[in-house]
Amino acid sequence: MSKPITQSPLQANSTALADELVATGVLFHRCGWVPATGGNFSARLGVDRMLITVSGVHKGELTRNDFLVADLQGQPLEAGRKPSYETGLHAQLYRFDPSIGAVLHVHSVANTVLSRARGRVSLQGYELLKILPGISEPEGAVEVSVFSNDQDIARLSRRVEAHMNEHPLPAAYLIAGHGLYAWGETIAQARHRVEALEFMFECELWNRGN
Amino acid sequence: MSKPITQSPLQANSTALADELVATGVLFHRCGWVPATGGNFSARLGVDRMLITVSGVHKGELTRNDFLVADLQGQPLEAGRKPSYETGLHAQLYRFDPSIGAVLHVHSVANTVLSRARGRVSLQGYELLKILPGISEPEGAVEVSVFSNDQDIARLSRRVEAHMNEHPLPAAYLIAGHGLYAWGETIAQARHRVEALEFMFECELWNRGN
Amino acid sequence: MSKPITQSPLQANSTALADELVATGVLFHRCGWVPATGGNFSARLGVDRMLITVSGVHKGELTRNDFLVADLQGQPLEAGRKPSYETGLHAQLYRFDPSIGAVLHVHSVANTVLSRARGRVSLQGYELLKILPGISEPEGAVEVSVFSNDQDIARLSRRVEAHMNEHPLPAAYLIAGHGLYAWGETIAQARHRVEALEFMFECELWNRGN
Amino acid sequence: MSKPITQSPLQANSTALADELVATGVLFHRCGWVPATGGNFSARLGVDRMLITVSGVHKGELTRNDFLVADLQGQPLEAGRKPSYETGLHAQLYRFDPSIGAVLHVHSVANTVLSRARGRVSLQGYELLKILPGISEPEGAVEVSVFSNDQDIARLSRRVEAHMNEHPLPAAYLIAGHGLYAWGETIAQARHRVEALEFMFECELWNRGN
Repeated sequence: MSKPITQSPLQANSTALADELVATGVLFHRCGWVPATGGNFSARLGVDRMLITVSGVHKGELTRNDFLVADLQGQPLEAGRKPSYETGLHAQLYRFDPSIGAVLHVHSVANTVLSRARGRVSLQGYELLKILPGISEPEGAVEVSVFSNDQDIARLSRRVEAHMNEHPLPAAYLIAGHGLYAWGETIAQARHRVEALEFMFECELWNRGN
Repeated sequence: MSKPITQSPLQANSTALADELVATGVLFHRCGWVPATGGNFSARLGVDRMLITVSGVHKGELTRNDFLVADLQGQPLEAGRKPSYETGLHAQLYRFDPSIGAVLHVHSVANTVLSRARGRVSLQGYELLKILPGISEPEGAVEVSVFSNDQDIARLSRRVEAHMNEHPLPAAYLIAGHGLYAWGETIAQARHRVEALEFMFECELWNRGN
Repeated sequence: MSKPITQSPLQANSTALADELVATGVLFHRCGWVPATGGNFSARLGVDRMLITVSGVHKGELTRNDFLVADLQGQPLEAGRKPSYETGLHAQLYRFDPSIGAVLHVHSVANTVLSRARGRVSLQGYELLKILPGISEPEGAVEVSVFSNDQDIARLSRRVEAHMNEHPLPAAYLIAGHGLYAWGETIAQARHRVEALEFMFECELWNRGN
Repeated sequence: MSKPITQSPLQANSTALADELVATGVLFHRCGWVPATGGNFSARLGVDRMLITVSGVHKGELTRNDFLVADLQGQPLEAGRKPSYETGLHAQLYRFDPSIGAVLHVHSVANTVLSRARGRVSLQGYELLKILPGISEPEGAVEVSVFSNDQDIARLSRRVEAHMNEHPLPAAYLIAGHGLYAWGETIAQARHRVEALEFMFECELWNRGN
């Protein structure tokens, strides 16, 4: 890890956020949620930028050098580096809601199986639903939307945007066969929501005949 | 971690108990039993106090600062800190039985799925039942009660109390969609009971057609 | 860990074996095969003794002090220490076959579920069967016997002995609801057999409709 | 680990490759993909040699000494050391395609169960398919061939060769009851493909009724 002699406040912030995303990657890989080079992570840097993982790196073995700064249109601000393929989906969320501070995308077996099989995932009666924003009573049903997968990320992000304009989301959505996007005001909050959602998705896999 | 120059015996005891609960959290998180900020842990401090995790912290990443001292009505004895939401359930157990030295609450996939689907979980023919108090013969059935979930913790703890007055429990009960409460004379004993119960719950998930 | 100034060759051997069993316990606990205080491990010490885990300790957190020396009738040679409850089953194996150098007993979800449901577990067509003694062709079926559980260990060990006199075993047997006993000439060989058998048992759990 | 005073470039390369395969083994064992002494790993050394694990070692506990150099007929170039039983399958791949730089063979529960039950494994609609060579659109089906197991490795490798001459493979094939062979230009690429394939195989195990 590089140890710069002097740092601007933004650089220092960026390094701290990168370190937190590196640790998140180690944890999530141990859980099996970022196989191969799947998944990508970002954190907001001020009002108009984000720090996001570069393309093609293993999320369980990130270093500080595996991130770049992009604007909220998803354009990298560093020449010669390629952001994650799905940067546009992160950018859409940061533009949509200024309170969003971090976005985590993971591929788990549970979210992949459920998102392939169901048009939406309805979660009800789990105490952990209270981790999601606005839920104080776990007995009400929470719907996690499933978008069909699309290799055209600009088109997919427009579909997400149109949907979010009409339906408040529980700080998360699924893409069929592809995985979970979840977010929060901080990396920690986004991570806790991923943990809670993945836990409930695993429960759903077992919810047959028990 | 703070290294106080001098400590009263109670402080020293409290630090040792906190360290043991921190280690328990690391272990349980690796098992997937305390996702997000779920779960809470406590240990008795003398006859009329307990050490309990504060509200909203991740149980896999606890530090010594994530605990507070509360009385056995569940009231914190330290100003300005908020105990775990479910402190009242811990307090009920310490009041009910002076031999209880530790209470561990965990959310596992197995205990969540079973507690949602069954009115009680009957365990029979498992050698590990002998870890539970008063069981010397694994062929007898042990019933783990399931209480319906309730966001009113005072009301829920009165229901548990009323039930315990009539039925001896196997040092554990379940709350539907919410998880396991298990206890012991020591943290180690409570932890072993959690491990044994979670093991048997996982077996129950697979007990179909094999 | 104690560092004795001088050691007899037998003591040195015993320490090395204990260290290897300690490491085995860490590994097996991470796999979920020794929950709570379940399981026990032993290794042969010369022709007429064995080193075996003491009663009631957690097998994932063993230290060099958690072992004692017993004779091959299962009697401890150290005053005041209590060997594992099931020492008689280890002793029977060491008496039965002088080439046995280590015996490992584990409780896994897979071996517990299968041993409760089946009178014997038949394994066929797994490449890993070649880890078992005398198997060079994985297409032949290997039968792992399941004994019904019994709290009278002397009686259970006589049943095992009678069975082994008539049927060669694949270096392993199961006890219903209780777990696997597996053995080898060395701790490493016994451990590899446990890993291979547990792998095949897990496959058997999934062998439905795939 | 030995620290030679001087090294030829080839020796240095070989040490670096061995270290990367050692790390791969630790990771894969933690995932449960190389139980007992199952699996074997290799990497190309120049145009006509490979580095491959020796016979009978545990892949989660490899050291630099657990590898040997063999030619691309599978013959060891070091006297007195025995290469992995299945070296011929590695050699066939290096001869077949000069761009192959690493071959990894693993036994997972998922690949074992699927390869026993299906004549081929068809994967469709998984975003992670894009990790495989030539796949840019996850909606098309990818077929992973399953060869029946054979203890005659020369005969099995001829069957694989004949099949590969007629059908391009997705950098991987399965052997029934035996496991996955996957490859790439580098160890990292081969490892990512193993992670992606094992992830999809696990999803397939759950693809029933969800």
